[in-house]
Amino acid sequence: VMVVPPIPVIFVGGVTGEWRIERIAPVRGESLPSAARLARIEGTSPPPSGVWTLRGTTSNERYVTRAEKEALRAAQPVLGRSESTRAALIPVRKSAAWWELAQDERRQILEERSRHVSLGLRYLPAIARRLYHCRDMGEPFDFLTWFEYAEDDAKRFEELVAELRRSPEWEFVEREVDVRLAR
Amino acid sequence: VMVVPPIPVIFVGGVTGEWRIERIAPVRGESLPSAARLARIEGTSPPPSGVWTLRGTTSNERYVTRAEKEALRAAQPVLGRSESTRAALIPVRKSAAWWELAQDERRQILEERSRHVSLGLRYLPAIARRLYHCRDMGEPFDFLTWFEYAEDDAKRFEELVAELRRSPEWEFVEREVDVRLAR
Repeated sequence: VMVVPPIPVIFVGGVTGEWRIERIAPVRGESLPSAARLARIEGTSPPPSGVWTLRGTTSNERYVTRAEKEALRAAQPVLGRSESTRAALIPVRKSAAWWELAQDERRQILEERSRHVSLGLRYLPAIARRLYHCRDMGEPFDFLTWFEYAEDDAKRFEELVAELRRSPEWEFVEREVDVRLAR
Repeated sequence: VMVVPPIPVIFVGGVTGEWRIERIAPVRGESLPSAARLARIEGTSPPPSGVWTLRGTTSNERYVTRAEKEALRAAQPVLGRSESTRAALIPVRKSAAWWELAQDERRQILEERSRHVSLGLRYLPAIARRLYHCRDMGEPFDFLTWFEYAEDDAKRFEELVAELRRSPEWEFVEREVDVRLAR
């Protein structure tokens, strides 16, 4: 099925879904309630009921240049690879101070100082990733990032998130939860 | 009341609301149905029922630099001035080609080639303006722009929209409706 973006998504933490929740860890601020399984529903199918629900949508890129966009497109793997038996859902909310910055200032912190895009590129194609936006939807988070990887790449994934959390960009994170999954 | 952004909005075309609809003109693509009055409801108050409803939200700026942001902030008038007896609601949808562009390419078309920000600055403080985003909300438009001005500035407002519609940026507009209002 050809899906025209933006693609809406609903994540449901509860008792059904393809993914088993291994742990839910608060990185900054309040955590999410415990749940046994996670469903990730893209499109307009009705979601199952659950303990918690997070909504988002794919959107246009906000920071990448044409050159970065092409580099990402060339290296980015698809979601749903059979070897991707590990996943992470990382909801993040940034501070009012971040959103008050002008576009050039956010770009400067994100890429020139934090190397967000080039850092991510170093972990491709091992880590597949999809970013959903939700700040404009009245949700408790601004972004929901979804990652998929093979068990063999689990250590690489830990390096990636550790590097991102050490970056100047991360000083603007007000709430972050790290949900780890397996199937 | 101190409202923390993003501020959601609902525009309802129908029989109630502060603004009398003078005309609804399709600029590109399909128009909106006729209605007598327009209500603009910011926040979470329940909207009246109507013939059509458009939802959006204020959001962070996507293109302006710090210098442009400060210039806009210094010159931008508030909404609701008593002399602002004229208003316009201009919903716009841009093409898939626009949204496929990288951030630097959109910025280049918007400001370096179309002078969107500097053009707008020339009409301040006569024209008050608020931009609502709705592309990520599954709405029929990407943006809802709200303008308020005095009857004496009506000709200036026509100049502004004519200039914007002649710009390279406007070649990416796929649907645009121009709703003119008075109170």
